[in-house]
Amino acid sequence: MSKLYFRHGAMNSGKSTALLQAAHNYEERDQHVLLAKPAIDIKGEKAITSRLGVDREVDFLITPELDLRAEFASRVAAFKKETGKGIACLLIDEAQFLTRDQVDQALEIAVLDNIPVLAYGIRTDFLTNGFPGSLRLLEIAHSLEELKTICRCGRKAMFNARKMDNQFVFDGEQVAIDGVNVTYESLCPSCYLSERGSL
Amino acid sequence: MSKLYFRHGAMNSGKSTALLQAAHNYEERDQHVLLAKPAIDIKGEKAITSRLGVDREVDFLITPELDLRAEFASRVAAFKKETGKGIACLLIDEAQFLTRDQVDQALEIAVLDNIPVLAYGIRTDFLTNGFPGSLRLLEIAHSLEELKTICRCGRKAMFNARKMDNQFVFDGEQVAIDGVNVTYESLCPSCYLSERGSL
Amino acid sequence: MSKLYFRHGAMNSGKSTALLQAAHNYEERDQHVLLAKPAIDIKGEKAITSRLGVDREVDFLITPELDLRAEFASRVAAFKKETGKGIACLLIDEAQFLTRDQVDQALEIAVLDNIPVLAYGIRTDFLTNGFPGSLRLLEIAHSLEELKTICRCGRKAMFNARKMDNQFVFDGEQVAIDGVNVTYESLCPSCYLSERGSL
Amino acid sequence: MSKLYFRHGAMNSGKSTALLQAAHNYEERDQHVLLAKPAIDIKGEKAITSRLGVDREVDFLITPELDLRAEFASRVAAFKKETGKGIACLLIDEAQFLTRDQVDQALEIAVLDNIPVLAYGIRTDFLTNGFPGSLRLLEIAHSLEELKTICRCGRKAMFNARKMDNQFVFDGEQVAIDGVNVTYESLCPSCYLSERGSL
Repeated sequence: MSKLYFRHGAMNSGKSTALLQAAHNYEERDQHVLLAKPAIDIKGEKAITSRLGVDREVDFLITPELDLRAEFASRVAAFKKETGKGIACLLIDEAQFLTRDQVDQALEIAVLDNIPVLAYGIRTDFLTNGFPGSLRLLEIAHSLEELKTICRCGRKAMFNARKMDNQFVFDGEQVAIDGVNVTYESLCPSCYLSERGSL
Repeated sequence: MSKLYFRHGAMNSGKSTALLQAAHNYEERDQHVLLAKPAIDIKGEKAITSRLGVDREVDFLITPELDLRAEFASRVAAFKKETGKGIACLLIDEAQFLTRDQVDQALEIAVLDNIPVLAYGIRTDFLTNGFPGSLRLLEIAHSLEELKTICRCGRKAMFNARKMDNQFVFDGEQVAIDGVNVTYESLCPSCYLSERGSL
Repeated sequence: MSKLYFRHGAMNSGKSTALLQAAHNYEERDQHVLLAKPAIDIKGEKAITSRLGVDREVDFLITPELDLRAEFASRVAAFKKETGKGIACLLIDEAQFLTRDQVDQALEIAVLDNIPVLAYGIRTDFLTNGFPGSLRLLEIAHSLEELKTICRCGRKAMFNARKMDNQFVFDGEQVAIDGVNVTYESLCPSCYLSERGSL
Repeated sequence: MSKLYFRHGAMNSGKSTALLQAAHNYEERDQHVLLAKPAIDIKGEKAITSRLGVDREVDFLITPELDLRAEFASRVAAFKKETGKGIACLLIDEAQFLTRDQVDQALEIAVLDNIPVLAYGIRTDFLTNGFPGSLRLLEIAHSLEELKTICRCGRKAMFNARKMDNQFVFDGEQVAIDGVNVTYESLCPSCYLSERGSL
């Protein structure tokens, strides 16, 4: 039986780099993987982009209504037909944007289809509330592993504070992909509470 | 700055034993701790009971409307007045039954009042959905640490399947404290899905 | 394939309690375990004694020349003959006192005989140097898991400082079981270096 | 007080990538780091090279007789003089090649000078025995964190088997940097024992 892993970390903790490295580790051993990410993450369209300068296209995008297990099975079958080879691992970036059902399907891929699933994502939004996908992963993943990064104060960052035009904001939609006006800063709980005015 | 720890594990993984051991470790060093648990957990009333045969009363029960940070502060102050000494740690059993606000208050105790909080609890209910307290802990605890136990098949147990009169049931209220008719069995995802009929 | 686990922690971190809890978790599920400890640990003779007040006799003592894998296999066979049942786990207390060969045999029990081995012990002696058994476990165990306890300063304790007649000492034999004159205090690196005079 | 971290993993688990990502995480926050590696690792001379295609020069090489704490302090002072800024972290690649004294000095940098030290390296040589630096790190690092990679069989790789002209060899010097004739393959314990002829 394989496992479902949730490798979580604040924004800019290197999750995409870690995912691309994990894919590389498999492929260097002549094992094949599939990469996917939720379609909601429009940053770079089909690309997974690491801030270290490495990038790569995903094999498929996961729309909200997609049956992840069925889609994965059909891609595994197609790969088998084309190459005669199997798929050793499914890697998912921005996994916080999966639906709850899709995380259940990811668990089934691991447990019932015996293929490990590595899901990378953030735990919480800019108000410290979980996303649907990350909450479900926190509930049912076999293994919760943290990728660390630092706060401006030197402590471990955990929360993803949102800035509009460089000012911290504490209301708005849950999803606002970072871009021109919206940016994020990973903060430790102390700096986050301080910025939010709880001190 | 201290931290909020969530030490989670399936039922019967030894969480209460671990909590009592942690309390003992502090006290052996002449450091003082407070123990608490949600009032909803009526098993043994004020007692924390370890299946190894050790038990101990909590210092206070946490009712749903309680302001955990204020209550803790007042108990720390009372202890200080009585003994001249401080409190080194707050230990919470059955932390899945905390409210979301109380988990936020636990984070504030750690971050703003600089006293570590060790919260022990299960991740999910008998349907694999989180409890309010455990979901919030999974979102904001500094450290997620798993206490392991085994499934009947020898794999790591993760889910808490409910039995009524010794038959697995998959509908009912989220909270049903184990007793005469209701029991729980910790299962790995594979055995859980199998019992639920997903295979 | 099963795994070899090294659950390490400073003295008085609750290792024996954790071992007895793990044994209990198996037995509660009608699975059988064997408990062992190196014969060098004469504290309580054949007993594993938890500071929480629980104790239990080991099934066998491990003398330095013992072939652990052969001994375990013979005890598994005897148990099978007597009861018709298998052994689900080998639990070893004070594993730092194993020889290197015995740790290799423990790995073989896990990998070749497919029975998990849970080894509990301290990493280092009173001078911060590893014991033969703990060094080998740190080299080859599948999983290194820390059981935490606190230093008098509130930080995590890591080192096991020795006291003779209540004074810290920094020379002497590697093994001196705690008793009347010799005691140990678990310290964090900062307090340890301070006591040793490095500050 | 800062901590000494040992992030260990079998060869080709992505340690250099993780180190470069960690450096990037600091620098993105306008915090400065120093990179170092033992001089014995001649692969790429002063470069740390990630198999993902990223590379970077270390700030200094660590020769066996170097006092790491003094050297680091002098470089911190020089950086301060030149820029007015401090150093937030020391990152060490191939840390298994440090001397025991240098690991003690790394602990002092963390504990006494309050600067975190992230040491990346492998646990063991091609015969599963520790290197001087990795053994000392396993003994005294605050945090032991594993970077995972896979064996050809799909399990987690742990051991670093050596090949000469593509044949596994089980005798030879501890250090043989991989190059034309010598290569390494990361194996799980089962595959390693099988290749070594223990099955």
